[in-house]
Amino acid sequence: MAELAGNLLVAQSGGPTAVINASLAGVLQEAGRHECIEEIYGGLNGILGILNEELIDINEQKARTIDGLRYTPAAALGTCRYKIDFKKKPEQAARDMDRLFEVFQAHNIRYFFYIGGNDSQDTSHKIHLEAVKRNWDLRVIGVPKTIDNDLPHTDSCPGYGSVIKYNAATVMEIGFDVGGMATDDGSVCIVEVMGRAAGWIAAGTALAKRSAACPPHITLLPEVPFREEKFLARVKEVVEQNGYCLVVVGEGLKNEKGEEIGADRTRVDAFGHPVLSGAAEALGDIVEAKLGTKTRTVKLGYAQRAAAHFASATDANNAYACGVAGVKGAVEGQSGFMVKIVRTTGANGAIQWSTGLQPLGDIANVEHFIPRDWIAEDGFLPNEKFFEYARPLIEGEVKFPIDSGLPKYVALEPAKIEKKLPARA
Amino acid sequence: MAELAGNLLVAQSGGPTAVINASLAGVLQEAGRHECIEEIYGGLNGILGILNEELIDINEQKARTIDGLRYTPAAALGTCRYKIDFKKKPEQAARDMDRLFEVFQAHNIRYFFYIGGNDSQDTSHKIHLEAVKRNWDLRVIGVPKTIDNDLPHTDSCPGYGSVIKYNAATVMEIGFDVGGMATDDGSVCIVEVMGRAAGWIAAGTALAKRSAACPPHITLLPEVPFREEKFLARVKEVVEQNGYCLVVVGEGLKNEKGEEIGADRTRVDAFGHPVLSGAAEALGDIVEAKLGTKTRTVKLGYAQRAAAHFASATDANNAYACGVAGVKGAVEGQSGFMVKIVRTTGANGAIQWSTGLQPLGDIANVEHFIPRDWIAEDGFLPNEKFFEYARPLIEGEVKFPIDSGLPKYVALEPAKIEKKLPARA
Repeated sequence: MAELAGNLLVAQSGGPTAVINASLAGVLQEAGRHECIEEIYGGLNGILGILNEELIDINEQKARTIDGLRYTPAAALGTCRYKIDFKKKPEQAARDMDRLFEVFQAHNIRYFFYIGGNDSQDTSHKIHLEAVKRNWDLRVIGVPKTIDNDLPHTDSCPGYGSVIKYNAATVMEIGFDVGGMATDDGSVCIVEVMGRAAGWIAAGTALAKRSAACPPHITLLPEVPFREEKFLARVKEVVEQNGYCLVVVGEGLKNEKGEEIGADRTRVDAFGHPVLSGAAEALGDIVEAKLGTKTRTVKLGYAQRAAAHFASATDANNAYACGVAGVKGAVEGQSGFMVKIVRTTGANGAIQWSTGLQPLGDIANVEHFIPRDWIAEDGFLPNEKFFEYARPLIEGEVKFPIDSGLPKYVALEPAKIEKKLPARA
Repeated sequence: MAELAGNLLVAQSGGPTAVINASLAGVLQEAGRHECIEEIYGGLNGILGILNEELIDINEQKARTIDGLRYTPAAALGTCRYKIDFKKKPEQAARDMDRLFEVFQAHNIRYFFYIGGNDSQDTSHKIHLEAVKRNWDLRVIGVPKTIDNDLPHTDSCPGYGSVIKYNAATVMEIGFDVGGMATDDGSVCIVEVMGRAAGWIAAGTALAKRSAACPPHITLLPEVPFREEKFLARVKEVVEQNGYCLVVVGEGLKNEKGEEIGADRTRVDAFGHPVLSGAAEALGDIVEAKLGTKTRTVKLGYAQRAAAHFASATDANNAYACGVAGVKGAVEGQSGFMVKIVRTTGANGAIQWSTGLQPLGDIANVEHFIPRDWIAEDGFLPNEKFFEYARPLIEGEVKFPIDSGLPKYVALEPAKIEKKLPARA
């Protein structure tokens, strides 16, 4: 494959993670090593910023800042939820695609990296196909990112190891708290975690279990339909045994009819509209009403995916390696692939991490769930197969500088590239 | 004062903190240095366990375990909410007091340390007065503990520095997350923190502000009555300026009528009973309904007070020092005091921490709130006076061992002392 000279554009998309910037650092630092890559641009707020020709100049950034991305959470370039939607909005999508290639051509973009989850891989795939169709020599590589861990073909998704490391530590700590306060009357604590329709994050908190009596006692995974009676019986049993019960619930938990828990509530807002409460609140109400046990809830929300202060070094290193591998692959002539993480377990059990490339067409719109045989028969906890998989992902801690007692994260300079096109219509 | 020989009993009470065990370690390690202290006992689950004669033998614990208490969150001895209530239940209280002294006499308890907040200091005070009345030679010292930071006469309360260090880091991280996702439509994130009627914890998250544009943009303190119109106007303004607005709300926020926010809701549970939602949920509903801005909530709950994985070394050291000082004071003959933390600022601005003793009668049932002149005129953020006070409290990080990627905390052996009394009536 002939060497392709030109500029590089990288952008981030979707919900941020503790290590999405580590992938960005990987792309940027590797890009600096290749002469064929001339200018290096970052697109602000994903595809949306690119459509608006909002690009920043990475060569104006300090090397120290780029290095700091390896421990800085959330999307330093900004992200978006904008989707080029050929199915529902074909005309808008066609206009967007035209505009995107106008931007690529105006700035001689020959390398395009999009760091994101399912939707973003789909976008990358479409851009790759368009480039071929339009005969614009462009190397497109998707870099995986999602705390939800639901991308197929990769061992794991950058962001996942860190979210479960932080969440497991948090559940362990909450367990010490609730366990220490449990007296005769017993108590229940319900912790809601993210993960949408997949239970990977909820299951990951079970890494906190040092023994059967340790919390979490129940992990409610969206993969297993919720059955109220069975759940209440289990909570009652655990409270009788331990004095308390710590439950972790994945936000996307559904009942046997496929309805989300927390969505069938009779709660109304100031305007009389029904309001959807979270799964933890809904379950807390059920436990208090049916078992009469004091129940507290925790909703970690965005805190969990941004918790760089207790991120997994394994995860951050894999995230960085994905960025590096993407650039290497593109320089070598590859396009239309997503970087994937590959795990090799040696004879002594030692794990080696490497990367590979998977055609984007295999990724887009495929969701990867926890296999049923990785979950205990009663559905309430993951089993050893899951633990074997998840344990290595939380190894090691990311180091970060501290200033006046708090993490000192970095921010990119808003060194914007001069626009060359008329404003987007 | 003549030397008093006998046994020591220590117990923990109320909501745990990240450093309540550091105070326990201080008591236990200092107690080991004094020959007049013969046996060292821990009361399980505070006063409740003592009434039930549930004591464990600290001399059966490994030195390594006691040392590990310095970084282990929550109450290693267990806590309770049980109160000897002379006002509402005078007969039960009199019976409890008799029983308590039966236990003290049966086990020759001559030193009693109670680690806790307002209620616990009140209990310690009553026990001290009773001992004098009953002519039982007993040295009673209260050791301060509360994340709420609402005890009077002490510079700060052990537990507070750690909760605001973790919460400020978390708010900073959430700010990176929400800020990076903010596109044209803007967004709001509301983080609910603890602190009951005091705004110390909510105000402490403002330590995350590295500049005026940095989050948190608004801290809603229970000390300042909530006014919806003014709040919404400020949120709108911040979103227009920054693209997003991060609000921190203290759980005990009240409106001008003194009603708690989140308590005047039209929400009903499965049984048709009104349900109290949290302050963050209530505010989120208001913002979404009135401003139409996408709003997310985070409720850190117990996670914040148990977060030993990012605890303040200054706080943990002060907590430890309080335990040590309590034992020293008692051995020297003091009784009926609470240990307090004293801050001395040198000419060069360097801070020195020491301890003192304050009569328990000065502490009990007095709540300490943020002075109004430590809060900005508009009421939405603390000012420099608060920052000067709070900054030193989050300095330094507590080190802890890690096993398989997660903190390795310790637990006491349940080495119970043989009961000498008939069961409690």
